[in-house]
Amino acid sequence: MTRKLFELCGTDETRVFSPFCWRTRMALAHKGLDAETIPWRFTQKDAIAPHRSDKVPVLIDGDKSVADSWTIANYLEDTYPDRPSLFGGEGGRAMGRMLNWWGDMAVLAGMFPMIVADIAGHLDPVDEDYFRKTREARFGKSLEAVSADRDGKVDAFRKALDPLRLTLKTQPYLGGEAPNYADYIVFGPFQWARVVSPFKLLKQDDPIYAWRERLLDAFDGMARKSPGFEV
Amino acid sequence: MTRKLFELCGTDETRVFSPFCWRTRMALAHKGLDAETIPWRFTQKDAIAPHRSDKVPVLIDGDKSVADSWTIANYLEDTYPDRPSLFGGEGGRAMGRMLNWWGDMAVLAGMFPMIVADIAGHLDPVDEDYFRKTREARFGKSLEAVSADRDGKVDAFRKALDPLRLTLKTQPYLGGEAPNYADYIVFGPFQWARVVSPFKLLKQDDPIYAWRERLLDAFDGMARKSPGFEV
Repeated sequence: MTRKLFELCGTDETRVFSPFCWRTRMALAHKGLDAETIPWRFTQKDAIAPHRSDKVPVLIDGDKSVADSWTIANYLEDTYPDRPSLFGGEGGRAMGRMLNWWGDMAVLAGMFPMIVADIAGHLDPVDEDYFRKTREARFGKSLEAVSADRDGKVDAFRKALDPLRLTLKTQPYLGGEAPNYADYIVFGPFQWARVVSPFKLLKQDDPIYAWRERLLDAFDGMARKSPGFEV
Repeated sequence: MTRKLFELCGTDETRVFSPFCWRTRMALAHKGLDAETIPWRFTQKDAIAPHRSDKVPVLIDGDKSVADSWTIANYLEDTYPDRPSLFGGEGGRAMGRMLNWWGDMAVLAGMFPMIVADIAGHLDPVDEDYFRKTREARFGKSLEAVSADRDGKVDAFRKALDPLRLTLKTQPYLGGEAPNYADYIVFGPFQWARVVSPFKLLKQDDPIYAWRERLLDAFDGMARKSPGFEV
């Protein structure tokens, strides 16, 4: 296999937990492409420096390397045009840029405070130290303090998902009748949370919960088979 | 001309100010279609009841009538497929549904409290009475009280537009290199505000300000020519 993907993990190499890596992993599956995982940890900057990146995912495809989940999605769409489209046309690709930012802000950044303390428990000591220092500097307090009031924060997080929730009342996926990259943008953060944290971000009667279930089942249950919590 | 559009106005029939009507007006222009305005006011429910709607826009196209801006956009795309696409493919149409909800919530509902008191001044007495009663019941206070602290609210509104702002840093329109319906979804509310209120929702150095300027100039300056404020 010539294709390889640097994916974030911790102590357990099978517990891949970057929201961005999951976007890429779902995009690869959508295109029917496989890629061998190269397990990567926060402090292994040297391993990906030759690929001009300090973050994962980094995709190695033959003699090419591509970093950043959005750039990789566009690379896959352009390089494998005969396989199922990730965007459903140029309009979808352009609008996808905005949904990617919305996914980063409302979904990913919205859930981060609620799961950040759980992430630390999955890391080797050197990575945990790095993770705590960088993230605690960002939040201005300990990870445990950030996550402490998550029961009080979760309602605002759920409310911010209303545009997604209302969309899913009239169509099964953001991509329409079938999922596309717009779905993977939002699913990536949910899968990240599911892999590292037992915290229930969604209520079971939420249309977003049912949508997440469908994506856990997609591609022969690829995401569901990954180690994770019942959420 | 067989095509007609019921559009919301107040005392001044040329001052069309519904965010939803502006979405439709821009969509018609995008398709190169004209439509005669039928001025409509809040209390003229009887005029549109035959078209099975109690809200505008309502488009009359020959012997068909279509209500609701999202439904009209889809009708135009399907009925005039040889004219410039509003969605840029089926992926864009599906993702547009989510952007429409985001536009309704973050943009339209976000700016509403800041301009609602200004709307009342543009209405005939019977419509002003209807508008005040229905909207004050929704807010639980007078329109003037709702808009009173708008200088304190505008920063949060601007912050909520970050996904749009960041997108516009790498592409001129939500639709990519040229505008499409995703842009009109967001522009409609901004044009609504501009027509009825002198309040400055955006700073001049905001990429969204420059984007709005480009859309004011689109279609031979159609939106800019409408009566409105310098904002």
